[in-house]
Amino acid sequence: MKQAPLADKVLEGDVRATARLIRWIDDADPAALPHLAKLYRHTGRAHVIGFTGSPGVGKSTLVDKVVSQFRKENRTVGVLAIDPTSPFTGGAILGDRIRMQRHFLDEGVFIRSMATRGQFGGLTRSTADAVVVLDAMGKDVIIIETVGVGQDEVDIAHSAHTTALVTVPGMGDDIQAIKAGLMEIGDVFVVNKCDREGSGKTVRELRFMLHMSSDRHRETGWIPPIVETSASQDEGVENLHRALNEHRDFLMEHGKDEWKRRVFHRTQNQLLEILKERALERVLQKIGGPAALGKIIEDIVDRRSDPYGSADDLLRIVMGGDSI
Amino acid sequence: MKQAPLADKVLEGDVRATARLIRWIDDADPAALPHLAKLYRHTGRAHVIGFTGSPGVGKSTLVDKVVSQFRKENRTVGVLAIDPTSPFTGGAILGDRIRMQRHFLDEGVFIRSMATRGQFGGLTRSTADAVVVLDAMGKDVIIIETVGVGQDEVDIAHSAHTTALVTVPGMGDDIQAIKAGLMEIGDVFVVNKCDREGSGKTVRELRFMLHMSSDRHRETGWIPPIVETSASQDEGVENLHRALNEHRDFLMEHGKDEWKRRVFHRTQNQLLEILKERALERVLQKIGGPAALGKIIEDIVDRRSDPYGSADDLLRIVMGGDSI
Repeated sequence: MKQAPLADKVLEGDVRATARLIRWIDDADPAALPHLAKLYRHTGRAHVIGFTGSPGVGKSTLVDKVVSQFRKENRTVGVLAIDPTSPFTGGAILGDRIRMQRHFLDEGVFIRSMATRGQFGGLTRSTADAVVVLDAMGKDVIIIETVGVGQDEVDIAHSAHTTALVTVPGMGDDIQAIKAGLMEIGDVFVVNKCDREGSGKTVRELRFMLHMSSDRHRETGWIPPIVETSASQDEGVENLHRALNEHRDFLMEHGKDEWKRRVFHRTQNQLLEILKERALERVLQKIGGPAALGKIIEDIVDRRSDPYGSADDLLRIVMGGDSI
Repeated sequence: MKQAPLADKVLEGDVRATARLIRWIDDADPAALPHLAKLYRHTGRAHVIGFTGSPGVGKSTLVDKVVSQFRKENRTVGVLAIDPTSPFTGGAILGDRIRMQRHFLDEGVFIRSMATRGQFGGLTRSTADAVVVLDAMGKDVIIIETVGVGQDEVDIAHSAHTTALVTVPGMGDDIQAIKAGLMEIGDVFVVNKCDREGSGKTVRELRFMLHMSSDRHRETGWIPPIVETSASQDEGVENLHRALNEHRDFLMEHGKDEWKRRVFHRTQNQLLEILKERALERVLQKIGGPAALGKIIEDIVDRRSDPYGSADDLLRIVMGGDSI
């Protein structure tokens, strides 16, 4: 638990300590773990909101505008922009700089991009860790913005209290199919760029699809609103902000079971991810590191063995009686 | 190793046995494992091609047309359509039916959608397992088609020998950013719907970005071609087919190191994923299953403990001297 003061600084709201800890998380540096363990008990207060949707729907601008709305209420905001598609080009860092400019002088806003593609830790895992840090730092609202609509994005959205699903008018048939799959995770639906042709049609389609899955809403008691926005024109952002707050109020007042279910689910995922990662670390440590692993992989590549049997052999070595 | 005959049937090319084994993989059913272990040594012959790109770029139609081209060469084809966004709606199954119609009477084509969202196994893992099955079944070419451009898609693309990155003219600024991030993984670039306005501009932008990252290409010796197609109009598909074959020939003739590097990397990922999953299974087994886990999670939810320390405690219980 050396360097424990870092965690204390985060609890005091120190920006540089927070930035450093999040960078360690993004780099999958195990140095972050003792601090995270210490911070965890100070969390659970923030409203975690996920923004997801296909590339090109204008999520970044929308999030920027929503941040300003939360600031008008005097609530502090942390933004995590998750962009796994830019591992090499520094796109995430560039994005940060552009974003930071808007809220640069506002100490109530902390924005960070993450692009973790570490070998052992997944993106869902590192995002959850970063949320712990921002929550412990004292941010009232934490916004997770994802790029794309793959499984990671869905998982990340699942880990939020409130998920805003963003689309735009007329994105073609594939989008319709995806919408159908993503309907399940949306608490608030946003049709952005609503000044474009076909916005009304998209709203009607969404309403129809929501109607189709209304059994679920009868169960939870929350009917997802559909909000039309034009973030670049500053249109409808107040409505979106209100809808996000209403969902939080709903969860706290009427949706205790739903809230609890989500928190339990998220915590379970987080624990299991950490467990998998640590177990793998121990196995690699035990067999003698990358060189020994390389030999095992060569055998598989040359079909002298197979990955399924080799995994079992490795586990047997580590778990089979020997103490660490 | 009961039911070993199933693996034998797959090796004989039996469609029903193959379909069953892939369903087990998609359901994360451990029954698949002994069969996969048996099949693995019979793999390594197929040319694995990944198709990735944003939703709406027309990947499905393009893949269908490319399949027909491979069939003209008398090569057999397996297609895995990976669609994690449709866990509940049965979209994947519907897609299968529509797709199957086109190649229904052709025994040389096997098409399956996967939507695995299992708790313990990831999508990259189940895709790799399904590739093992199709390879062992004797398919000459295996096409992995992904939806979206998230981390999973990038990882899946990484596991292919050849990755085709599909885009369309004029998808907006976000797409440009993503293109930059995805440039690294493309072996063949496709501008589909090339009859649309702005196709030439998109080709020029791609060429410029490829030029920017030409250091990498000088290293490997492969300069990714840019192919314009209009899959729905049957335009340019022969060129795409030729480019895919040329990349395979390049890897086999001049790119032995690059090929080896990819195979090693893919095998390493596959082994580590299996290892993580099995380690987690053992831990859960050891502590007494879901109920015991539930208690641990409740403690974390109520901040009596934290997930990082709890993971360590669990590992200590399992690995600390007790034999299984």
